[in-house]
Amino acid sequence: MVKTRSIIDEYKTYVPGRSKKEIAEKYGIKEEDIIKLGSNENPWGPAPGVYDAIKNSINEMNRYPESNHEYLKEKIAEYAGVRPDQVIVGGDGADELFDVLAKTVIEPGDEFIVHPPTYTYYEYIFKQQFAKPVYAKWNIEENKLDVNSVLENISDKTRAIFLCTPNNPSGGLIPQEDIIKVIEATDALVVVDEAYWEFAETNNINLLDKYENVFIIRTFSKVLGLAGLRIGYGLSNPEFLEKMNRIKPVFSLTVPSQKAVIATLEDKEFIEESTRKSIAEREYLYESIDAMNNLHIYKSKSNYLLVDLHKSGYTAAELAEKLMEHGIIVRDCTSFQDLDEYYMRISVETHPKNEKFIEVLKELVE
Amino acid sequence: MVKTRSIIDEYKTYVPGRSKKEIAEKYGIKEEDIIKLGSNENPWGPAPGVYDAIKNSINEMNRYPESNHEYLKEKIAEYAGVRPDQVIVGGDGADELFDVLAKTVIEPGDEFIVHPPTYTYYEYIFKQQFAKPVYAKWNIEENKLDVNSVLENISDKTRAIFLCTPNNPSGGLIPQEDIIKVIEATDALVVVDEAYWEFAETNNINLLDKYENVFIIRTFSKVLGLAGLRIGYGLSNPEFLEKMNRIKPVFSLTVPSQKAVIATLEDKEFIEESTRKSIAEREYLYESIDAMNNLHIYKSKSNYLLVDLHKSGYTAAELAEKLMEHGIIVRDCTSFQDLDEYYMRISVETHPKNEKFIEVLKELVE
Repeated sequence: MVKTRSIIDEYKTYVPGRSKKEIAEKYGIKEEDIIKLGSNENPWGPAPGVYDAIKNSINEMNRYPESNHEYLKEKIAEYAGVRPDQVIVGGDGADELFDVLAKTVIEPGDEFIVHPPTYTYYEYIFKQQFAKPVYAKWNIEENKLDVNSVLENISDKTRAIFLCTPNNPSGGLIPQEDIIKVIEATDALVVVDEAYWEFAETNNINLLDKYENVFIIRTFSKVLGLAGLRIGYGLSNPEFLEKMNRIKPVFSLTVPSQKAVIATLEDKEFIEESTRKSIAEREYLYESIDAMNNLHIYKSKSNYLLVDLHKSGYTAAELAEKLMEHGIIVRDCTSFQDLDEYYMRISVETHPKNEKFIEVLKELVE
Repeated sequence: MVKTRSIIDEYKTYVPGRSKKEIAEKYGIKEEDIIKLGSNENPWGPAPGVYDAIKNSINEMNRYPESNHEYLKEKIAEYAGVRPDQVIVGGDGADELFDVLAKTVIEPGDEFIVHPPTYTYYEYIFKQQFAKPVYAKWNIEENKLDVNSVLENISDKTRAIFLCTPNNPSGGLIPQEDIIKVIEATDALVVVDEAYWEFAETNNINLLDKYENVFIIRTFSKVLGLAGLRIGYGLSNPEFLEKMNRIKPVFSLTVPSQKAVIATLEDKEFIEESTRKSIAEREYLYESIDAMNNLHIYKSKSNYLLVDLHKSGYTAAELAEKLMEHGIIVRDCTSFQDLDEYYMRISVETHPKNEKFIEVLKELVE
């Protein structure tokens, strides 16, 4: 057998969530009736202009995509409120940029800090690059970062610190004063994950011109409605981005993805409307579940909510299975470090589907 | 400044080839009149069924793509003549799979062997993963692999050996007996790059069931006409693929890319026709340039040809510039290791464009 990198022995084969198609077949439900609360997508679909943009590009599919992204950077800079030279664009959503970040800052044996429970992909990627995870703490009871747990874990081996705001899966925000405390305490890169910033209606771009060790990472997979096209972007200082550009994949952003970026950012109304509806549905879900005696729900600034099932008598796996019989997909959070098997995450769907979900949930837990 | 991985200092920022749009603007040429001989694409466009497949998937763009690729693997296995469990699919063409391969087999300080002049991306990716390149030799005069130069360079640190057949940029094939010599001389992974196998009308899949240290890598960017959608696949033994799957990007293959794979592989006529036309145009270009006194052209089994300019009086950079004034894009091969500044690579275009190119070339060099 071919010899493999030793870290691979610590990994298990990824088991993806079940697809709409699979569930539709198993439970005899129509695919369009499936209620997908598992992946924090924009349930209202992409911006209408995306349809024509992609259709008109189909006869270019045989050609390599443009790789310098100059025009995309201009458009993204305008949307984000930064300069084009502060922007880097990646294929595969934000995930590719995490990989490029690891390759840019990590030497074998270096450390990175994460605050579980949080997005698990940071660790998935950084460990592959011979980096050692060091665990700070997200205070789940109060749904806030324990900033001292980050500060105390900074060492001279720390090369990256991940701050997820709003935090996935709990939805709490990190106050900017805490982010600044971390930035000022280290030379390491502080990666501020703002994948869901639109739903929080606040962000940290004002830090970019003040600090050179900040990297803000974002995605087109959430409110911008393009999860299927895998587009991410990062914001940082031009010198650091130049280093990343030396080693990043050259052609990873597909032709339709590039067209869809432009069509989406040109449609401000779509973005505002999607944000507004997501926030309204989030509040509807919060109020509805908060009224149930056997569930505890956390306040969220994102398009998903964390639900504590301890009093319900169900584990997340059990409840997820019951919901699936009704065509409802939720995220069982057992695999998030520092959460036990009694948490699930739900993201917003369109209103009729959210109502149906609440109805089914009530029947199951009350 | 944030500290970066030391290997990054050895890299320069990638300068992409100029786009059709750029050249059209600079030289006042219509975009549709540009003759692009630089990127080894299928100039006849994607399979006709790709249009509808993508159009019909536009309303799924807001959802994450499927990540298990079961159906794609079945279709690819059928096309390649292997079993589905011998297939792995990647986003970003074959390039992502090179990255996953490096992460799967390389520990810091390990070695890999390449045979310059050959595809340069192997080295671009593997060096980022702390691997040391060891150089074997492609005999450019005879346009064949110097197999002894590979065998002599195998050490106990060798973890991967790249054999490119047909070789990019020279178009020569590696006889299977030479591939077997290499495979049997090592426990390292022998990566057989068959990106252009369709044009050679031969391949090495019969080795998969005999040897566990073979990995055949392919792409949808060439004859299959989907360079803009970034799809690659690999063929190897299931145990090794299971290790790769543990660490590969989960969602990197976009929704339209997945739909296009199916639509393309269902259209056998498109594939046969594109292959046939590419070969015919290659032979047309070969004969036409072979008849010119001041150019030497190498026989090729691919959809591109290497041209030696020494006797023409032009460097590749100079000739490329002259051609560009006529709206013709070729590949200056100066950046390929072990080629000097007097080589260019040209890929096939549609017949009228190839004729136009030959006409302009004749004027310039004769």
